[in-house]
Amino acid sequence: MKLATYRDGSRDGQLVVVSRDLATAHYASGIATRMQSVLDDWNFLAPQLEELSQSLNHGRARHAFAFEPEKCMAPLPRAYQWADGSAYINHVELVRKARNAEVPESFYTDPLMYQGGSDDFLGPREPIVCPDVTFGIDFESEVAVITGDLPVGCTPDAALEGIRLVMLANDVSLRNLIPAELAKGFGFLQSKPATAFSPVAVTLDELGSAWMHGRLNLNLESTWNGKRVGLTDAGPEMTFHFGQLIAHICKTRNVRAGSIVGSGTVSNKDWSRGYSCIAEKRAIETIEGGAPKTPFMRFGDTIRIEMKDAAGASIFGAIEQKVARG
Amino acid sequence: MKLATYRDGSRDGQLVVVSRDLATAHYASGIATRMQSVLDDWNFLAPQLEELSQSLNHGRARHAFAFEPEKCMAPLPRAYQWADGSAYINHVELVRKARNAEVPESFYTDPLMYQGGSDDFLGPREPIVCPDVTFGIDFESEVAVITGDLPVGCTPDAALEGIRLVMLANDVSLRNLIPAELAKGFGFLQSKPATAFSPVAVTLDELGSAWMHGRLNLNLESTWNGKRVGLTDAGPEMTFHFGQLIAHICKTRNVRAGSIVGSGTVSNKDWSRGYSCIAEKRAIETIEGGAPKTPFMRFGDTIRIEMKDAAGASIFGAIEQKVARG
Repeated sequence: MKLATYRDGSRDGQLVVVSRDLATAHYASGIATRMQSVLDDWNFLAPQLEELSQSLNHGRARHAFAFEPEKCMAPLPRAYQWADGSAYINHVELVRKARNAEVPESFYTDPLMYQGGSDDFLGPREPIVCPDVTFGIDFESEVAVITGDLPVGCTPDAALEGIRLVMLANDVSLRNLIPAELAKGFGFLQSKPATAFSPVAVTLDELGSAWMHGRLNLNLESTWNGKRVGLTDAGPEMTFHFGQLIAHICKTRNVRAGSIVGSGTVSNKDWSRGYSCIAEKRAIETIEGGAPKTPFMRFGDTIRIEMKDAAGASIFGAIEQKVARG
Repeated sequence: MKLATYRDGSRDGQLVVVSRDLATAHYASGIATRMQSVLDDWNFLAPQLEELSQSLNHGRARHAFAFEPEKCMAPLPRAYQWADGSAYINHVELVRKARNAEVPESFYTDPLMYQGGSDDFLGPREPIVCPDVTFGIDFESEVAVITGDLPVGCTPDAALEGIRLVMLANDVSLRNLIPAELAKGFGFLQSKPATAFSPVAVTLDELGSAWMHGRLNLNLESTWNGKRVGLTDAGPEMTFHFGQLIAHICKTRNVRAGSIVGSGTVSNKDWSRGYSCIAEKRAIETIEGGAPKTPFMRFGDTIRIEMKDAAGASIFGAIEQKVARG
């Protein structure tokens, strides 16, 4: 099934079930009003939502209406956890190579992850508001999962069983704030403003055989100012699958229902596939020509992030954001 | 007023109002059942809770019962944000001096903060469960605040107006995991297991003149295995006050209601006041004798963290935790 959260003026919005073709939707209010409630009580509520989803897909839902992604908040408008990996090691290799730094050997066995802010996510059509364009505004096209409860010490395989929903993310980054912030040693804070998510989050069965052992084997499209700049394969080159990323957090603590875990920028060794963040394009330019040429985003720029299935249908709907001064 | 959350088997527990002397409590269920609901709608709900608090303090609340801190979850059992500062620069100076590192000049003007996990907090009497004692289990006695909504670009003074509640925190750290994790560059993840909070969170008026411009001018007691090891003054040596810490987050994003912001380990230049975390004691030993002597916590160890007012009464109740293998 596919789930979304409609804006209704409240902090958590209204849960809706969306049809597979993203054409119609139906309020889930007879079952649950908020996405977090469903995650808190998944085994009881998910089957009921599944039933509504079936009716909707078969055109039998009584009060269906046209689905409008413009009305969406993030599927989970605020979350108790947002931890983002950097699971495509090719991205790390490129960025480091551009600044003549080595990738430590441990990075191939120990996932790189950061704890992000999760109190104020953006809906798929909300602007990226930034006070200062010199902060170096960049998009990062990613895949993300929402989990159920997973206990401390959980293995990667067991963690896979706890994945409830999959969606897309734009992990907006302020590149020019990153070097000084990371030099302080405590990770990201100011350099990661609000993250945006796709209109819908979907259960694994919606992904069919494209979902395989914690990796999503489909292409992620990034379109910047109307030009497709990336068509990167999210599958085989994901060095650490989602179960490994979740288990990494579980080493010393529980992961509770509604935690969101991101893949990091999807990145491929084949440069002809393009890029899922500008920083990577700039790294390639630096490696090839000694200096970056492509500037970061400007006020008024647009970014569209989408993933299509084998038949060319959009799975999650598109993230479409504009950069705004604010 | 003083608020707490009683364990009831649910994820968010039951909100209770606690009397000033921590002797009695009353369910707030006629007003709100969960702490986050109160933070989401503070201006409407807080006055009603205040009224109940007055009745309780005057012995006029009908269904009051004896307050038992053992029944408490964290005041906010899970939160949409937990960002912890390192606001007592003396702590940073000591730790760096012990490893012959300099404190960068910017650390005196730009707060050091990290984004922590907030999906699974510990109540004040819940054990610190750790799979391996060689991780280097340490307590960190801190002051923390819970905020309302604050907009991006908010000033430190305006941020002070958004502080709703104050409580104590034990920001448990796994010291021996920290060096390798921070060397990866993305901050803490595995080295910060679940944080514990005091039985009650209190509004600023409960602190009287001890709360002054974002600092809490009272002593924080840390008692390790029954021995008081720290009686540190949380006030004057807090280099960055809570408004500055919150405004630091607000530079590039909104801070939403229910965000928890911590002070970091309370630390004083006068070593005779003791310590609020073992790492600091070990730093002092290293500076004085070339090597640390005090080991980190062992399974079965206890830690008690408490703060008393000028009259000697406990303000927040005590955090009392035992270290357990798990």
